[in-house]
Amino acid sequence: MSKHVYSFGGDYTEGDGKMKNILGGKGANLAEMCRTGVPVPPGFTITCQVCNLYFENGNKTPKEVNEQMYAALDKLEETMGKKLGDAANPLLVSVRSGAPFSMPGMMDTILNLGLNDKTVEGMVKKTSNPRFSYDSYRRFIQMFGNVVLDIEKDEFEHLLDAQKKKAKAKVDTDLTADDLKAIIVEYKKLVKKKTGKDFPQEVKAQLEGARDAVFRSWFNDRAKFYRKQNKIADDLGTAVNVQSMVFGNMGDTSATGVGFTRNPATGDNEFYGEFLVNAQGEDVVAGIRTPRAIVQLGDVMPEAYQQLRDITAKLEKHYRDIQDFEFTIEDTKLWMLQTRNGKRTGKAAVKIAVDHCNEGLISKKEAVLRVDPNQLDQLLHPMLDPKALKSLVKLGKGLPASPGAAVGKIVFTADAAVEQATKAPVLLVRKETAPDDIHGMEAAKGILTSRGGMTSHAAVVARGMGTPCVAGAEMVGVDERSKTLTATVDGKKVVLKEGDWLSLDGSTGEIFAGQAQTTEADPSSGELAQFMSWADEFRGNFGVRANADIPRDAKTARKFGAQGIGLCRTEHMFFGEDRLPFVQAMILSENEKDRRKALLKLLPMQRADFAGLFKAMDGFPVVIRTLDPPLHEFVPKREELMVDLAKLPHADAKLKKEMAGRYKMPVGELKKALPALLKRVEELHEFNPMLGHRGCRLGITYPEITEMQARAIFEAAVQVAKKGVKVIPEVMIPLIGSVAELENQKAIVKRVAEEVLEKAGMKKMHYLIGTMIEIPRAALTADKVAQEAEFFSFGTNDLTQTTMGLSRDDYTKFSKDYENRKIFKADPFAVLDQEGVGKLVKLAVDLGRSTRPDLEVGICGEHGGEPSSVEFCYNVGMNYVSCSPFRVPIARLAAAQAALSDGGGEKMRTA
Amino acid sequence: MSKHVYSFGGDYTEGDGKMKNILGGKGANLAEMCRTGVPVPPGFTITCQVCNLYFENGNKTPKEVNEQMYAALDKLEETMGKKLGDAANPLLVSVRSGAPFSMPGMMDTILNLGLNDKTVEGMVKKTSNPRFSYDSYRRFIQMFGNVVLDIEKDEFEHLLDAQKKKAKAKVDTDLTADDLKAIIVEYKKLVKKKTGKDFPQEVKAQLEGARDAVFRSWFNDRAKFYRKQNKIADDLGTAVNVQSMVFGNMGDTSATGVGFTRNPATGDNEFYGEFLVNAQGEDVVAGIRTPRAIVQLGDVMPEAYQQLRDITAKLEKHYRDIQDFEFTIEDTKLWMLQTRNGKRTGKAAVKIAVDHCNEGLISKKEAVLRVDPNQLDQLLHPMLDPKALKSLVKLGKGLPASPGAAVGKIVFTADAAVEQATKAPVLLVRKETAPDDIHGMEAAKGILTSRGGMTSHAAVVARGMGTPCVAGAEMVGVDERSKTLTATVDGKKVVLKEGDWLSLDGSTGEIFAGQAQTTEADPSSGELAQFMSWADEFRGNFGVRANADIPRDAKTARKFGAQGIGLCRTEHMFFGEDRLPFVQAMILSENEKDRRKALLKLLPMQRADFAGLFKAMDGFPVVIRTLDPPLHEFVPKREELMVDLAKLPHADAKLKKEMAGRYKMPVGELKKALPALLKRVEELHEFNPMLGHRGCRLGITYPEITEMQARAIFEAAVQVAKKGVKVIPEVMIPLIGSVAELENQKAIVKRVAEEVLEKAGMKKMHYLIGTMIEIPRAALTADKVAQEAEFFSFGTNDLTQTTMGLSRDDYTKFSKDYENRKIFKADPFAVLDQEGVGKLVKLAVDLGRSTRPDLEVGICGEHGGEPSSVEFCYNVGMNYVSCSPFRVPIARLAAAQAALSDGGGEKMRTA
Repeated sequence: MSKHVYSFGGDYTEGDGKMKNILGGKGANLAEMCRTGVPVPPGFTITCQVCNLYFENGNKTPKEVNEQMYAALDKLEETMGKKLGDAANPLLVSVRSGAPFSMPGMMDTILNLGLNDKTVEGMVKKTSNPRFSYDSYRRFIQMFGNVVLDIEKDEFEHLLDAQKKKAKAKVDTDLTADDLKAIIVEYKKLVKKKTGKDFPQEVKAQLEGARDAVFRSWFNDRAKFYRKQNKIADDLGTAVNVQSMVFGNMGDTSATGVGFTRNPATGDNEFYGEFLVNAQGEDVVAGIRTPRAIVQLGDVMPEAYQQLRDITAKLEKHYRDIQDFEFTIEDTKLWMLQTRNGKRTGKAAVKIAVDHCNEGLISKKEAVLRVDPNQLDQLLHPMLDPKALKSLVKLGKGLPASPGAAVGKIVFTADAAVEQATKAPVLLVRKETAPDDIHGMEAAKGILTSRGGMTSHAAVVARGMGTPCVAGAEMVGVDERSKTLTATVDGKKVVLKEGDWLSLDGSTGEIFAGQAQTTEADPSSGELAQFMSWADEFRGNFGVRANADIPRDAKTARKFGAQGIGLCRTEHMFFGEDRLPFVQAMILSENEKDRRKALLKLLPMQRADFAGLFKAMDGFPVVIRTLDPPLHEFVPKREELMVDLAKLPHADAKLKKEMAGRYKMPVGELKKALPALLKRVEELHEFNPMLGHRGCRLGITYPEITEMQARAIFEAAVQVAKKGVKVIPEVMIPLIGSVAELENQKAIVKRVAEEVLEKAGMKKMHYLIGTMIEIPRAALTADKVAQEAEFFSFGTNDLTQTTMGLSRDDYTKFSKDYENRKIFKADPFAVLDQEGVGKLVKLAVDLGRSTRPDLEVGICGEHGGEPSSVEFCYNVGMNYVSCSPFRVPIARLAAAQAALSDGGGEKMRTA
Repeated sequence: MSKHVYSFGGDYTEGDGKMKNILGGKGANLAEMCRTGVPVPPGFTITCQVCNLYFENGNKTPKEVNEQMYAALDKLEETMGKKLGDAANPLLVSVRSGAPFSMPGMMDTILNLGLNDKTVEGMVKKTSNPRFSYDSYRRFIQMFGNVVLDIEKDEFEHLLDAQKKKAKAKVDTDLTADDLKAIIVEYKKLVKKKTGKDFPQEVKAQLEGARDAVFRSWFNDRAKFYRKQNKIADDLGTAVNVQSMVFGNMGDTSATGVGFTRNPATGDNEFYGEFLVNAQGEDVVAGIRTPRAIVQLGDVMPEAYQQLRDITAKLEKHYRDIQDFEFTIEDTKLWMLQTRNGKRTGKAAVKIAVDHCNEGLISKKEAVLRVDPNQLDQLLHPMLDPKALKSLVKLGKGLPASPGAAVGKIVFTADAAVEQATKAPVLLVRKETAPDDIHGMEAAKGILTSRGGMTSHAAVVARGMGTPCVAGAEMVGVDERSKTLTATVDGKKVVLKEGDWLSLDGSTGEIFAGQAQTTEADPSSGELAQFMSWADEFRGNFGVRANADIPRDAKTARKFGAQGIGLCRTEHMFFGEDRLPFVQAMILSENEKDRRKALLKLLPMQRADFAGLFKAMDGFPVVIRTLDPPLHEFVPKREELMVDLAKLPHADAKLKKEMAGRYKMPVGELKKALPALLKRVEELHEFNPMLGHRGCRLGITYPEITEMQARAIFEAAVQVAKKGVKVIPEVMIPLIGSVAELENQKAIVKRVAEEVLEKAGMKKMHYLIGTMIEIPRAALTADKVAQEAEFFSFGTNDLTQTTMGLSRDDYTKFSKDYENRKIFKADPFAVLDQEGVGKLVKLAVDLGRSTRPDLEVGICGEHGGEPSSVEFCYNVGMNYVSCSPFRVPIARLAAAQAALSDGGGEKMRTA
């Protein structure tokens, strides 16, 4: 028979910290804490596997589990010297979830189980504290009613509020024992009315009901959503921890609190957390009462405080990581309720990893593996620009709950956040957030709450998401019904409505009305710089480049550690206002001669841009892609032209003037020129632009475009090289499907390059001509393509579109249907589809190297900055990844971690 | 030292018929003829390899070739007892091209070489025929001047015409010896003027010049185009045949002619050809004089005729195929100038193969291999419908030069044909065609010439292309300058202009003004039926199905031998006028309930269609694809709506009524309903519809559509099966990219199928649920897809588009640039790209069978009817191909031929 129940505490602990998959994170930690001698309220854990049995068994817990559970209960009663349901000496227990992966607040918890009309009287006698006893019973009925019996929370709150009104009590603690007894009567009536049955007095029914409700909560919507977000499998299940209750609300010698061994926001080595005297744990987390800083516990209960410091320090050493713990002091005695590795911001993760390594607690390798590359994103985001802030109205300062700047239009509900986020950046503003707000928090650029502390739901979740958050900003009034945010500034009332701009700084807690400017982060100093240098040590010769089109971005890229440019999109230069007229003239030309004339105007502009890039990348390669988008992207939109033409006969002077401005032609010419323009635009119109006349296909039809771009590249290279800069141009031909296309374009580039270099006396300049692999056929025939290509760069954006036959723009229309039905494991445009697209990438790398063993291979699609995709690129033997400048450190770290768990990539690259 | 020159004729023949790659087709045949004792004018062949040497050597023939050539010339002079350049007894030779593959008329030829001012006088003396001698010299100067010295033909013709005018000569033969002498003087002046040098009197210079000019003509535009069309490699080169001249123009005892051992148009076993008395060969082929039927030669020169019959009969037996021969009778002596396997129409190819087999000349296997599958197309095309012809005006009857009906708008130049062919079917109408008209002949649906015979350029080329052609229709006047075609009908003049409709029947030679109706071909009788039955014997268990959407097409498909339907596109039913309103109602529905209501209306219609298909395919499988195209294809066009909406405020009553009709709404509702309609149309608008919300993606968003279609399929199956028909439904889910999509849709189909079959008590009905493989990802993950798919059908149209990242519709805009630069070997949408797309197909077949060894695999893209693609499908182990009904026999034959040269496909299919 399988073992389904593990006891812990007292001198009888069956599990340990490694048994997370069986006992869940919480259960394993409770067992581990017991083993290290930490005072933990005894109890037992029903395994995660029972959760699956429960569902397989038609939502019933099997009999043999019940038998083991009651045996464990017997043991617990023995240890505690109390009995569940014993009117004289009642044992009370908590029943909590605990999955193998932390899912904070997603599943249900029931406290004070074991209370009924008889045991509550026994408790009154034992504690001599009727108020506390009745309050516990009241809380238990409410929780059990909500979680097990599915009665809306509001129904209970409503009864509570009514009694408070009646008793003229401002807060809960103003209620007397008699008030609470009256509430209990009302609560029980409510249960009878809603369920048709009395509130269960039988404690075994209470225990079994609570346990099964926890199992069921594994599949509630919040939990399912969280697992999807965090890619946690549905079949892991949750354990149930039944633990004897201890009470932080037994008067002024009792307290409860939560904390971290270090500051989880900054990583600073300071004891960090909050507590409330005479309260139960949920009071702290729910953010209803604003708690006190944990260091003040030293003043209130010095002995317990010192014990807490000693125990938590020991725990951090034991677990070799920052601990997130919960404790309760029951009548001066300290009990540890939970400990686990603490969630932390990216900033804290880096600082703690560096500090722990410097303290000798962990190795350099462990330090590098400790930080999730995605977390770095928080450190690299822009901050509010202090100068620009002067013109904004500061509304106040809340708690700096999750760092980074956020600017957006405000919304007051999660649904509104999701809806509005498609149009503009939004900030979610709430009194406090709850687990069912998650989808809105996900959609928002930042979160502001007027209640709750640093460990409130909003703060914890925001940090996990890397979303800037200011919590507990009590100086602002949030009215979710009228959708207003109110503050008093210099004695005047300021009211913001839905859609108004707001700016907040999650690192300082400051809140501003209006749209702030932001400044860039600096990754070149402090712990981050040290951490990245360690990562780079492990990364070895696997390169990280940046996608940058203009010199400014190239400079940023260098600052973030990019070793070259992996993709410069020359067309981005074509869209410049000073250039577009020449681009259009080129497109509207009717013959090669006129086209060349227009191109000649563009040449010096492109040359200057390229010179800037080469300068910024002194000594590093710069990959420049020849013109890629279809030409119709540069001319007026066809439908707009058609509509304007339809309106023209009846247009008044104002509209005509508007059109003249739009198409840059005199009013008098509209009638004749508009149809002519439409004719050319019609010629350029395509049914499927993604699959149309673009990329190398343009250069094949109009060789003079490729020629001009090659000239600009090599003239710039010569010009900059003459000033002593080391220039390494890599010319990339896009959208190659067959080697014949590359042959055609390479010949043009090579001819121009040789000509320019010859003339400059620089024939020895090292340059490469290669291709983007972004069409399946190129990948499938990569052995042939590599006969001409001196490098490959995977354009995984387009390669994903063509391999999946899926237009990124059009996918948004039905992506929701695909997400809901779990058709794809992840958004294939964010995370490289290794099974399909990845298979093609690997094939192409292998085929390419079979022809040209020293083929340089990289990736320049957006996947190049996504950690799991970077790992894939490393493992298939690429030489580098290229991503947006701000993601360069993320890619550097992801590559280092890939190297530390090398899947063979290093071997392939150097084979 | 390599042997570069091979002598033939007399008693000294060095080559033979197998040496085509060395001697070219003509050279090898001349040698082979000599070996079989046929009287051939002696000469020698300079090998094809010398052609390459010529170009490698900087357009110069190497010295060692010259040495061998002059040695062969010595031998030839000895055999003939004449000497090149000998004034007393001059040898004259022809210099002709001859490549390993026949390229009729593409390269240059020079006749009468060896004539100069002195030898012409020797010839006068020897022949006592000054007129003939001077005419030969005149012709030689003209040919040499044009071919070797690059002087325009027109310049000579102009001088000839001037002299004719002066001499009042109507035709060339009216010119006297003195007239011709005068022309020679003018010709020589022209040469001097154009080249700055005298016409070469030195015969060795003549010979070397002519030889090198033939080599150069290998790369003239016509030859390059022809090789591209016929996929002949550029590096094969042409041989040069130097052969002693014989003269058909030495008076009334001389003649020249061309012929076939059987009728190359019908295949009938009749001696067939044409001749002219007192003429040179080119006069016959060029179509300037209309020649006489070859049987009449028996009357004119009975002895020579009998000898010709004996020799050609012997040659047909020797070569075991129909022979296309040229001969000249010089003063009663017969000389064979050439023989080769004759080009023939599809009809003739089939008849000849069947007859030759029945005659015991070739085996059944050889017979099946003798017919190019593409040639069958000619037999399968519709004919002019005799009933409908009554309403058209018959203009006359020309020679039935290439069979089949053609209906189109007339054009008068090759360029116009190419230009207009994109808009409507065109017929090319010319006095006569020339090799530089090839591109126009290619573009035209049919060809009509007013001059020339059955072996004129137009006739030969049209038969090769399988294009219907009526030649030598002298009763119609063609004026290419004024672009008119004139005929006299019942004494009245009828004038057709460019763009007017014309209908012609290449099998009868009839020509009609107007647009005729056509009737279907009947493949189920005669030689074709016998031939196809032989092909089917070799084809074995490799199936051929048809793509058919409606019962009528299904019946045609059966008639053409289809063994099932490989693709029924259900959406083609959606476009029916009686259905579109319900389809639109379904699309415009705002919720599932309304959508289901509209679908319920479509259900009986779809059911009836499917029932018809099942009935027609009794006992054979029917693959039905669920809805594929994006929904916006069923609603009004977005741009049109936008324009109408822009016009609406100023629209007059007429326009409003027009719009009301267009959008099927009352005029009064336009103002309100049009914007609403546009809103929905905008929602459906896609950037890249090819890669958008279509295929299985629709069924995933709207499961009720798949459900309705599955219901229609299985209710139809039940209904028809109850009548005793054997029904095998195969439901195909389109656009699968991942197995999860198929899982989703398969579950719906399976549920409905089981429900319908259960209810009908037909649970044992055999049916399959499978998928179209048309997205690279599906191919790459075919092992996983095959976990769910019970069959694969390759949709190579879309698979080509996605694998090559190339939209078929948009490719037309730049396909010319790609053709000119030879980027693709062939149009990838006509001929399967085996290197790229094919690699993916093979991968998918192998992966799919690795999961499901008995996986049924077919192809339903248009490539399924293209012979080389069918062979590929056979070789990768597919079970069947599916193509349009009219191409079914082509696919059957191609498959049989593939089986006869089995590349391992049979093994794979049965593994």
